[in-house]
Amino acid sequence: MSLPNKKYKASIIGASGYTGSEIARILVNHPFVSIEHITSETHAGKAFSDLHPQFVGILDLPLERAAEIDVEEQDVLFLALPHGVSMEFVRQWYGKTKLVDLSGDFRLSNATVYEDWYKKRHVYAEGFGKAVYGMPELHGEAIAQADLVANPGCYPTASILGLAPALAGELVHADSVIIDAKSGTTGAGVKASDTTHFSNVNENFRAYGIGNHRHTIEIEEQLGLIQGNRCQVQFTPHLLPVDRGILATAYASLAKDVSEEQVVAAYKTFYREQPFIRFRKQAPSLKDVRGSNYCDIFIHIDPRTKRLIVVSAIDNLVKGAAGQAVHNMNLMLGLEQAVGLDQVPMKP
Amino acid sequence: MSLPNKKYKASIIGASGYTGSEIARILVNHPFVSIEHITSETHAGKAFSDLHPQFVGILDLPLERAAEIDVEEQDVLFLALPHGVSMEFVRQWYGKTKLVDLSGDFRLSNATVYEDWYKKRHVYAEGFGKAVYGMPELHGEAIAQADLVANPGCYPTASILGLAPALAGELVHADSVIIDAKSGTTGAGVKASDTTHFSNVNENFRAYGIGNHRHTIEIEEQLGLIQGNRCQVQFTPHLLPVDRGILATAYASLAKDVSEEQVVAAYKTFYREQPFIRFRKQAPSLKDVRGSNYCDIFIHIDPRTKRLIVVSAIDNLVKGAAGQAVHNMNLMLGLEQAVGLDQVPMKP
Amino acid sequence: MSLPNKKYKASIIGASGYTGSEIARILVNHPFVSIEHITSETHAGKAFSDLHPQFVGILDLPLERAAEIDVEEQDVLFLALPHGVSMEFVRQWYGKTKLVDLSGDFRLSNATVYEDWYKKRHVYAEGFGKAVYGMPELHGEAIAQADLVANPGCYPTASILGLAPALAGELVHADSVIIDAKSGTTGAGVKASDTTHFSNVNENFRAYGIGNHRHTIEIEEQLGLIQGNRCQVQFTPHLLPVDRGILATAYASLAKDVSEEQVVAAYKTFYREQPFIRFRKQAPSLKDVRGSNYCDIFIHIDPRTKRLIVVSAIDNLVKGAAGQAVHNMNLMLGLEQAVGLDQVPMKP
Amino acid sequence: MSLPNKKYKASIIGASGYTGSEIARILVNHPFVSIEHITSETHAGKAFSDLHPQFVGILDLPLERAAEIDVEEQDVLFLALPHGVSMEFVRQWYGKTKLVDLSGDFRLSNATVYEDWYKKRHVYAEGFGKAVYGMPELHGEAIAQADLVANPGCYPTASILGLAPALAGELVHADSVIIDAKSGTTGAGVKASDTTHFSNVNENFRAYGIGNHRHTIEIEEQLGLIQGNRCQVQFTPHLLPVDRGILATAYASLAKDVSEEQVVAAYKTFYREQPFIRFRKQAPSLKDVRGSNYCDIFIHIDPRTKRLIVVSAIDNLVKGAAGQAVHNMNLMLGLEQAVGLDQVPMKP
Repeated sequence: MSLPNKKYKASIIGASGYTGSEIARILVNHPFVSIEHITSETHAGKAFSDLHPQFVGILDLPLERAAEIDVEEQDVLFLALPHGVSMEFVRQWYGKTKLVDLSGDFRLSNATVYEDWYKKRHVYAEGFGKAVYGMPELHGEAIAQADLVANPGCYPTASILGLAPALAGELVHADSVIIDAKSGTTGAGVKASDTTHFSNVNENFRAYGIGNHRHTIEIEEQLGLIQGNRCQVQFTPHLLPVDRGILATAYASLAKDVSEEQVVAAYKTFYREQPFIRFRKQAPSLKDVRGSNYCDIFIHIDPRTKRLIVVSAIDNLVKGAAGQAVHNMNLMLGLEQAVGLDQVPMKP
Repeated sequence: MSLPNKKYKASIIGASGYTGSEIARILVNHPFVSIEHITSETHAGKAFSDLHPQFVGILDLPLERAAEIDVEEQDVLFLALPHGVSMEFVRQWYGKTKLVDLSGDFRLSNATVYEDWYKKRHVYAEGFGKAVYGMPELHGEAIAQADLVANPGCYPTASILGLAPALAGELVHADSVIIDAKSGTTGAGVKASDTTHFSNVNENFRAYGIGNHRHTIEIEEQLGLIQGNRCQVQFTPHLLPVDRGILATAYASLAKDVSEEQVVAAYKTFYREQPFIRFRKQAPSLKDVRGSNYCDIFIHIDPRTKRLIVVSAIDNLVKGAAGQAVHNMNLMLGLEQAVGLDQVPMKP
Repeated sequence: MSLPNKKYKASIIGASGYTGSEIARILVNHPFVSIEHITSETHAGKAFSDLHPQFVGILDLPLERAAEIDVEEQDVLFLALPHGVSMEFVRQWYGKTKLVDLSGDFRLSNATVYEDWYKKRHVYAEGFGKAVYGMPELHGEAIAQADLVANPGCYPTASILGLAPALAGELVHADSVIIDAKSGTTGAGVKASDTTHFSNVNENFRAYGIGNHRHTIEIEEQLGLIQGNRCQVQFTPHLLPVDRGILATAYASLAKDVSEEQVVAAYKTFYREQPFIRFRKQAPSLKDVRGSNYCDIFIHIDPRTKRLIVVSAIDNLVKGAAGQAVHNMNLMLGLEQAVGLDQVPMKP
Repeated sequence: MSLPNKKYKASIIGASGYTGSEIARILVNHPFVSIEHITSETHAGKAFSDLHPQFVGILDLPLERAAEIDVEEQDVLFLALPHGVSMEFVRQWYGKTKLVDLSGDFRLSNATVYEDWYKKRHVYAEGFGKAVYGMPELHGEAIAQADLVANPGCYPTASILGLAPALAGELVHADSVIIDAKSGTTGAGVKASDTTHFSNVNENFRAYGIGNHRHTIEIEEQLGLIQGNRCQVQFTPHLLPVDRGILATAYASLAKDVSEEQVVAAYKTFYREQPFIRFRKQAPSLKDVRGSNYCDIFIHIDPRTKRLIVVSAIDNLVKGAAGQAVHNMNLMLGLEQAVGLDQVPMKP
């Protein structure tokens, strides 16, 4: 692979949220990409660093309205918009340039399933057929050819990466899968709400969306594709008093008499040559991956209960959002897949 | 029940840890009990409030050596000592006064099981036959007659209270039980260690003791007693970046076709007249019970997966240790069981 | 002082905020007071415990509208309302029952100063003449006679208690006073905002209101009263990533050649028989007073710089709000001043 | 400045601490430097990533003993060792290669002052004459010529950068300077202790070292150099419940009648062309600089009190330690001073 002799033009649609600023944090040091435009309908006219003062002197670009962008001039657009808003832009821009959509609008198989779980009408049902589910470890080749990539949800990223090899190898009973997942609060977004009010989160912990969280269906569909038929999972998210990170503890009953070594070997084969999967000899903690694009995986076979237990850890804003989006961009632009994603986990 | 016309004499053996100071926090305002002695082998001579400055002006009692206490003069002793240390004192003092042991030394059924899971020789195997497992909701009458109460572990308290009615009513398959539990760091004790080093815990989260934590057997034995035969559970503890609290998310496959309402009704019947069990319409958070002796329980039936999901929340230092110990003491002394335990949860 | 043979009737006006729920946390266990009514204009009809689920089973009183309360039937009303809202109720209810106002509406000397610092028109200027500044350590006798008590601000409570004896004894130059104060986020209220958004506070720290925070004038006026003439202080608040607590570090140049022992002695004389002032041999930390009505004070004389340094710590919601309000109520009702305020600091 | 056509060889002496791992985090992506050796006397033989699992797959270098390093083969050595240990290595290695010492052993003017404040005998008094104080904004040219750089303390970095221009311009009275500083816990090191025990820090806050912290003399000496004569400051550190960051709030009485604009202009002139000083229009927060080498500065003139208030914020592990060390290395090796230090602050 030869190095590009130019900088690709990338623009970020939606600047005020955490995914927007996190894409900027990564791209600003990407050797082959320049940030051309950043948009915000509500803050147009201000500098990007007015909204995100950590960027003062680093990225002071003025915020523009989306309508002002010459889309066809861009090599890639990142849509860092809320669910329901993104679909409108995708409908309008599809085919004009490469799109990485970080919303949930095109992650599922079709509009019916979407409307059932998101309780929202979809305005661009054709998009589902065009979108590739942007998980490079599973769909790298399709992503490289795609004009529209649906960047995976944060919980699904940790959950699917932790379980895919087990289901691909038919090591576990698919209907026994239970995923007990815990996320930092940035998953709830930048907007102030009771959910993210400091004293409601700090020194606290709780489960939510029990039995009905919409990431359930995203996990079920992707694991089902791997497994070959419908997969039903129990998924329970919890809110951690931390900024960043998802840790998923997944349980499944073994379908075969396999040793821990055999399972680890199967996982390593499944993920061979994947730059961002790390196998750990001890259960990972959130800070081991914080700020980076790694997904750390720990595998345990419990001989008493005949269950596989997998612990997977990611930074929800990087591997679970902006980092995975840049990884997808690299593949779509024909770049080396890990370029610009060399952030070392920030610990402590 | 008539009010006592005297103050009972209570002493705390082991002052430096969190359970010791938490018993003091509760007893100092108990209307029918006075704190007579507090011991510490390493800090004897200092004031209790030198070790725990929050007690300056409230409880400045000098710390004594355990050997200096006239045990028979006390109405009750709280042993707030590490596992392995407590058994020696129990051997020596059993029968001389009422003992509430907060260590794990007498929680299990016999010395063989203990030595298997605790990896430690037991010096007082006879104690197992004498000790009553101090969970008032299950063993209230036996506790009232006991000379030695083994105060339950913190994880087992949340786990067992969350599942006991389901197993008693044979609502779920016993071998399907998975308990994904999360605890604040005070569960790891007062002693500085890598495990409790601020930057290792803060903004972090991890699983530990996967498949082999010793609270597993305590839960299995107690649930087995309720269920009527051996019960095998999957128990995974996690370390939360908070001081206090345990939240247990328990999963079990339904054994019967029951509605959520029926399950809630069965739970309410099981725990009728229990002052510290609260049923919640929404999943509880740790702060809803912080500093108090409540165990908040939320029940959900997932119609898709035919599973019961129970979320239970306690303060590990109160309901999971010192509060439950005082509750046991009240029963042992013939006092109204909730007296002195009216701490309102501290939120925010 | 004889014990009351009845329960006094107290009502809380404004239930949704932290001061409202904290007053309830204290009063629910007060031996001589019953909570009669709790009001909320926006949540009337719900139970108090719907808003504050930590009170489930403890205080499930229905929320009422303020207009529904028969004010004259109450022995005392706590106004836990925002600045600017409270003044209307005080105007309407003054003289009908005893009022403890937790807002800032009557803390200053007159309406002109108020309007200057609060940037808000005052509708009840006469109230300033009627209100007593409710700091029991300074104005206990006047409080006992008052019909309207203006409960002090949280920062002023820590600041004034830390400096009053030094100014009373003319130990320091009044115009040299610098107060660098740090507060937990509950001081910013229960309402979700960017200021209190978890990821804006957590792992973060900042100064705000530099040179113009309105607690400045409250401190200046009260210290001026003690000092005998106008006092100008430098006050800088900071936002800590904790729920509760204020720690004020105050600096002042010595006006006399005094030893640390002499200063400590002067402080102890000034605060003799005050039940909630604790002198500490080491600098206090927030958790030493958390959840309690104590103000812990540490005094240091720096021989190099000839400065007095005072560190004072309170729980902003207790000593800085609800606890001080109940203390004021006790004085107003002729009760023993510390009754119902025996909460032991919650540490850890 | 032409780009180097080779990679310089850097080694890190002392791998277990936070400064060691933080230097590695920066150097691993430095375009012109390779990490040759990392040493640890206690962990020799293990991989660096065994100690710091965030580096798994990134930096798995085996840890060596310091004695095994061929010092003269290295272009630069970073000494990430405790005070008192570092001086021995400096004595042994001075002149053999370029040394950046991150301990406090050579920051002061001479051994007498050192022994007075550090309460420790110094074994290499000649080193003081050879060491350059490694603050690039003040001593860039001397650093470029130095064989031994004493990397500044974390508190002094924030404090001196915040005040240097005011003292250089004689804008304030030197003896009026008060620095109220607040630091995250990583400043206390990687070693578990009561000071860094989670429940002692979390939800807590306290002052320490009042009047006698050894960073006081470091600040006084450096400000004295700028000012032209002895400078006496009041310095009070506090412990924040966060991992990283120092925020210093400095107060000084104005010596001249200057406007805020004039002071800001003087600061900008003083720091012109300095890549890591950022002037802020609002008071900075710790997260604005977290993980980066920036020092954010906010200037306020209080017209009421005639004081200058400066708030400065740094990441104590980067600008206050490892980042400043790499900055010094860049200068010593003749590289562009900001190269490899393009880490964007990690927020949220």
